[in-house]
Amino acid sequence: MADEIVPPATQLAAVSLENDGSTVQRAQFSNRVLIRTILDRPDGGAGLAGQTVRIGGWVKSGRDQGKRTFSFLAVNDGSCPANLQVMVDPSLYDVSNLVATGTCVTVDGVLKVPPKGKGTQQQIELNVVKVIDVGTVDASKYPLPKTKLTLETLRDVLHLRSRTNSISAVARIRNALAFATHSFFQEHSFLYIHTPIITTSDCEGAGEMFQATTLINYTERLEQDLIDNPPPTEAEVEAARLIVIERGNVVAELKAAKASKEAITAAVAELKIAKETFAHIDERSRLRPGLPKKDGNIDYSKDFFGRQAFLTVSGQLQVETYACALSNVYTFGPTFRAENSHTSRHLAEFWMVEPEIAFADLEDDMNCAEAYVKYMCNWLLEKCYADMELMAKNFDSGCIDRLKLVASTPFGRITYTKAIELLEEAVAKGKEFDNNVEWGIDLASEHERYLTEVLFQKPLIVYNYPKGIKAFYMRLNDDEKTVAAMDVLVPKVGELIGGSQREERYDVIKKRIEEMGLPIEPYEWYLDLRRYGTVKHCGFGLGFERMILFATGLDNIRDVIPFPRYPGKADL
Amino acid sequence: MADEIVPPATQLAAVSLENDGSTVQRAQFSNRVLIRTILDRPDGGAGLAGQTVRIGGWVKSGRDQGKRTFSFLAVNDGSCPANLQVMVDPSLYDVSNLVATGTCVTVDGVLKVPPKGKGTQQQIELNVVKVIDVGTVDASKYPLPKTKLTLETLRDVLHLRSRTNSISAVARIRNALAFATHSFFQEHSFLYIHTPIITTSDCEGAGEMFQATTLINYTERLEQDLIDNPPPTEAEVEAARLIVIERGNVVAELKAAKASKEAITAAVAELKIAKETFAHIDERSRLRPGLPKKDGNIDYSKDFFGRQAFLTVSGQLQVETYACALSNVYTFGPTFRAENSHTSRHLAEFWMVEPEIAFADLEDDMNCAEAYVKYMCNWLLEKCYADMELMAKNFDSGCIDRLKLVASTPFGRITYTKAIELLEEAVAKGKEFDNNVEWGIDLASEHERYLTEVLFQKPLIVYNYPKGIKAFYMRLNDDEKTVAAMDVLVPKVGELIGGSQREERYDVIKKRIEEMGLPIEPYEWYLDLRRYGTVKHCGFGLGFERMILFATGLDNIRDVIPFPRYPGKADL
Repeated sequence: MADEIVPPATQLAAVSLENDGSTVQRAQFSNRVLIRTILDRPDGGAGLAGQTVRIGGWVKSGRDQGKRTFSFLAVNDGSCPANLQVMVDPSLYDVSNLVATGTCVTVDGVLKVPPKGKGTQQQIELNVVKVIDVGTVDASKYPLPKTKLTLETLRDVLHLRSRTNSISAVARIRNALAFATHSFFQEHSFLYIHTPIITTSDCEGAGEMFQATTLINYTERLEQDLIDNPPPTEAEVEAARLIVIERGNVVAELKAAKASKEAITAAVAELKIAKETFAHIDERSRLRPGLPKKDGNIDYSKDFFGRQAFLTVSGQLQVETYACALSNVYTFGPTFRAENSHTSRHLAEFWMVEPEIAFADLEDDMNCAEAYVKYMCNWLLEKCYADMELMAKNFDSGCIDRLKLVASTPFGRITYTKAIELLEEAVAKGKEFDNNVEWGIDLASEHERYLTEVLFQKPLIVYNYPKGIKAFYMRLNDDEKTVAAMDVLVPKVGELIGGSQREERYDVIKKRIEEMGLPIEPYEWYLDLRRYGTVKHCGFGLGFERMILFATGLDNIRDVIPFPRYPGKADL
Repeated sequence: MADEIVPPATQLAAVSLENDGSTVQRAQFSNRVLIRTILDRPDGGAGLAGQTVRIGGWVKSGRDQGKRTFSFLAVNDGSCPANLQVMVDPSLYDVSNLVATGTCVTVDGVLKVPPKGKGTQQQIELNVVKVIDVGTVDASKYPLPKTKLTLETLRDVLHLRSRTNSISAVARIRNALAFATHSFFQEHSFLYIHTPIITTSDCEGAGEMFQATTLINYTERLEQDLIDNPPPTEAEVEAARLIVIERGNVVAELKAAKASKEAITAAVAELKIAKETFAHIDERSRLRPGLPKKDGNIDYSKDFFGRQAFLTVSGQLQVETYACALSNVYTFGPTFRAENSHTSRHLAEFWMVEPEIAFADLEDDMNCAEAYVKYMCNWLLEKCYADMELMAKNFDSGCIDRLKLVASTPFGRITYTKAIELLEEAVAKGKEFDNNVEWGIDLASEHERYLTEVLFQKPLIVYNYPKGIKAFYMRLNDDEKTVAAMDVLVPKVGELIGGSQREERYDVIKKRIEEMGLPIEPYEWYLDLRRYGTVKHCGFGLGFERMILFATGLDNIRDVIPFPRYPGKADL
């Protein structure tokens, strides 16, 4: 075959810059240098003075100094929170087109150390030699004015809010935590399993699940079709039925008369056509506008999957099928709740991390959860410090100390029973809660936060909960009153993680399902995991957005996911 | 506060084993040694002889040798494709309970080198000293018999198929490719962005999208309510209306009569109640069974998000909002198509990797795509070789060579126009295609595979496609006939990647949207990215399951995702 055909250089090659003696690293797949590569050095970039580089980014703020002197642009490319100071000689370019906030610039320039004593904190700045590309902004129309908008206001401009310091820092922190998650589990030989988003499994609380469906579309098409082609009348159905009888009679007569084979074959063919026509007409005559029904219920046989399907609320049950074959697995994906909840803690679409460990018990589960949370805290301290400083400055001055505390302190571990005792002691000493404290209650957020923030002042694992308030799949303890469940509570958000050792005993779990009034049939596949080669195993779920709230100190979960979904809102 | 409360050791601590002088590493969060840690060593584990370890896993095959001699179990824990040979002295345990395929065993044992010349390939085996836990299997009922099931049959036992050699190897390969994906993009300073699953954005081809909705549920509840509480009759509505009038009159009369303030206030309160009652009755009288309608169309104001919402078909448009702020970003998540497609190449739910690069053009895009694919191939060769060998042995003998070829060979790069010329030359020489070849066509799969498999015999990037067959957001080339699009074609699967430089010019993209007959309004936010600080940028999408098909040589996409969804099928 022909030699490799190289694309014409004129068409595809980008202008190449010579960095004489350069040590600054060029970005790959983009003809420029990331601003982080310049600024995020021990010397703040000063050692790069004299080098020629191309950078690209968006103007955070610009000062047009007129014709006589240099103009200054603070340029950010998202690679780090810091801006690079860029100087433009007004003789080089019409500076008035560059200074509006939001303007995109690609420029070649020479790095230089700014003169001392100018009040600048920058160790390095860029003196532009050529303006390569500009994406202008009409400042009078730009939805993000220079004045700081509240996080709440920014939620109405989802497509632009990543250009703000706060939301871009959150994006970097979120990215770091996601990769820390994968790194942690991969280092510990866990396999990442993609559990399904569309599921037919979860049979509890279907009312709070979204349906994934094509049935509304089906119904609309059907209704339009009934308008375009009105269904046959009863008389038409009857007429078609009579033709079938008539043609049946013809066949019978021909057979009785011992007619020729050809004549009978032809008559049978006619009969067949008549039957098909009747079937079609009869079926159409039964069509009604509205959702398809059968025996009074919606007929899901017409839906895409031939049955009712939902958006998953958790990948746990499905990922257990892989844990019971591959030992250590985890899932990390979107989950959904159709709850009409307008709080700052709930989303209709959010991400969950759910590891599942075979040959492991509740203590292993706690150890894994604690190690994972500590790993994420250390990761942020090591790799996202500048972003954390921005959070500390703008939102929560204690957030860095909190990460350090969690990373370095062993988590408390107490039983639920002990937790109730401690809360009762507090009440006896005069502490007031909105919710009553007694053995058997589900701990309220105020209880959880009091335990972790006031009593322990560090993360706290509460374990062995009353079986009545926990799910059927949690392992029954020998006391037969509690199950091997555990929650990790942390300052600022309360419950961060919920987990349990799973009930691996077939008879016990079957009885639990029945006790809780759930149907057995939909769980037969899940029971198979206990019927065949059952294994002691455990797992937990971490709400990823809650981890980000915990890390950043932000208050509203809608600000830590790029595209928040909640009742009445699903922009973009 | 009280000292940290340590959970009672008897309750939580696992039995600890002493590995005298051991170098074998214990798994964390699970009291055992991963079988990979024993077998995946240059010496095949022989150097560990004499060590005492605990392992857990599932019996792949077992031989009950009776009372006189050792029984053998081949045990797999999913950490690697290889099984550990485990010997059990029949005096130690009732071996008949261990040998059934699928049995789960946790055992303590001493590693020893098997006698030479026994025909075994094992460098090490485990001599059991204690059986800790057993999860039995009734072989007569186990859905996975010893005889090999076809991949097709295994699709009906999704919850157990991960216990087979093939599907567990696919799971490890899939995991490796997912982590390779994150590692590649993180190494190149791309930020992972979670684009939304539920979207209100995609306005093209809504017919092929799933709806995410609570409207069917709403309708069912409404219909039940109309049965339980029949809506008011016309007479009841009229009666309520008359009461309002009557009470209005009372108020008017009192005012006219200059009655006491108290009397008027009381009458006004009565009127208010009557009005509210009427409004409620009137509203209920308008309720009809069926999906809520307004002006003949479905009334989505009653749906969860107050408007029609879908499952995403691509995160590209949304991730562009982050690229236009943070430069280098990618998304990796589930995407959906409600196509009634029953082929071996299509799923209703599948995973896509979509990077987006600012300050970058089509050549950068190709460079990134090529580097990414090569990176994944090298990753599998380095980290999943044993699994790849299993694939080569069972399914596609050429799959390892294919990975090596792709990892080491520069991809071909030709324009679409050149591709058409080459195909026309082939036709002229007698090659027959089902689909006609001429400039302007969308390349069919047979064309793509001919180019990459026969003509080039390596991956091939075809770029600059006719604008008529590509999306509105692709950048118009100067010839005004083609757009800066590129597809990466690879042997075995054809199109693996589709990408483009995005149209960054406001006027041009607006004209393209109009030309294609799309409404402007839903794209206003997307146009804002061009209005304000527009930037040259590009990106691509890789179908993650196609990459796994390419790597493994498997034929059916339903076998490379844990829980495949397609028309009529959404098990678990």
